Amino acid sequence: MMIDIAKLAGRIAAVDAGAAAEAQRRLDNKTKPRRSLGRLEDLVCQLAAVRGDASPVPRPAKAIVVMGADHGVAAEGVSAYPQEVTGQMLLNFARGGAAINVLARQAGARIVVVDMGVAHPPPDRPEIRQHRIAAGTANFTRGPAMTREQAMEALRTGAELAHQLARTGVGLIGIGDMGIGNTTASSALTAVFTGAPPEEVTGRGTGVDEATFRRKIEVVRRGIQVNNPDAADAI
Amino acid sequence: MMIDIAKLAGRIAAVDAGAAAEAQRRLDNKTKPRRSLGRLEDLVCQLAAVRGDASPVPRPAKAIVVMGADHGVAAEGVSAYPQEVTGQMLLNFARGGAAINVLARQAGARIVVVDMGVAHPPPDRPEIRQHRIAAGTANFTRGPAMTREQAMEALRTGAELAHQLARTGVGLIGIGDMGIGNTTASSALTAVFTGAPPEEVTGRGTGVDEATFRRKIEVVRRGIQVNNPDAADAI
Repeated sequence: MMIDIAKLAGRIAAVDAGAAAEAQRRLDNKTKPRRSLGRLEDLVCQLAAVRGDASPVPRPAKAIVVMGADHGVAAEGVSAYPQEVTGQMLLNFARGGAAINVLARQAGARIVVVDMGVAHPPPDRPEIRQHRIAAGTANFTRGPAMTREQAMEALRTGAELAHQLARTGVGLIGIGDMGIGNTTASSALTAVFTGAPPEEVTGRGTGVDEATFRRKIEVVRRGIQVNNPDAADAI
Repeated sequence: MMIDIAKLAGRIAAVDAGAAAEAQRRLDNKTKPRRSLGRLEDLVCQLAAVRGDASPVPRPAKAIVVMGADHGVAAEGVSAYPQEVTGQMLLNFARGGAAINVLARQAGARIVVVDMGVAHPPPDRPEIRQHRIAAGTANFTRGPAMTREQAMEALRTGAELAHQLARTGVGLIGIGDMGIGNTTASSALTAVFTGAPPEEVTGRGTGVDEATFRRKIEVVRRGIQVNNPDAADAI
């Protein structure tokens, strides 16, 4: 299947507030004090709003999709870890040795690991799906991290994988990403889409020291200057 | 077994801060960003501190103990529900139809339901253990809710049940109580032990209206005046 991202985006609708309200009404009719399940009730209503249906999902099959790729901006020294860690962690996910594997087992969810383009790929394993777009993105302080075609292909890969899982009966998908430098890229996106200054939306990621943190903010600022992105064009 | 509560209380020691620190060190050595599991890491450390041992508990058997009893103070009109609900809920727990049953099943915990003295007992069922101390406590706005002997017997019942579960391999016990009027009694205890005024430590319970809430605060205040409890004597 070849998904058309523009068409798919056009079909994304607002969540169904009526379904959320109906889910809350159903919870309020149960033999328990109102709102006594707290955050769990919020989640039930959110799920109803997303699905547009207040009835419980009968034991959905669950999957966690973890996609890994490298960020060229890691060359600017914004992380406490070297880029080799991205591929090592993909291998760790495939072997079942990471924290997400433990949490997924506990939740009864299968894990789908995808190599979207790590710089130092792990050895081939059947548990790691190959959708490599490039050997990592380019350093966004020197120009665009990806071409528009690459970005579209990445989105298409995600959408097609979701469809494929849904066809096999998966009713609930959790998502995660792995890539040294990823919070630098996401800080830059957040700054662009919110219009907030980089120092307000940049965090410490995996726990970098003060000097690295300062550098990270500077890198985000520089990336935005160099690329001058249009906040109205998400891709 | 007959447990001596005074002896048992003497054996209660402070939690083991060293075990908590050691548990955090072990978490920090795992292949994940530090503290990335958030609240889950706090729980691991808390459990280590309580057990005095940083090593993981190998798949402990789990139990939820729900004890039900009635509070005489319900006669003052402090709840949105009638006292009959206490016994009905015990039956609901025994039949597996309450929210706690769903949560327990999800966590792989068995449920132990105990009638400690509901005013309107449900029909006998093997799933409901009988440890009735009285048909509910007395109204604490007119005198003590329980005799000292009754309070000691209630504590002893809990301690003996915990020992009994531990002997059958249970390594983790969750506790709950059911009893219309229970947050009025606990507000009064909180006010006495903290020295805070009743209006600061009284909540709305299952969601009472403004007039009932005002009355509830007044009832707590009156109960403390009438009984003049010694905050240094927990029983």
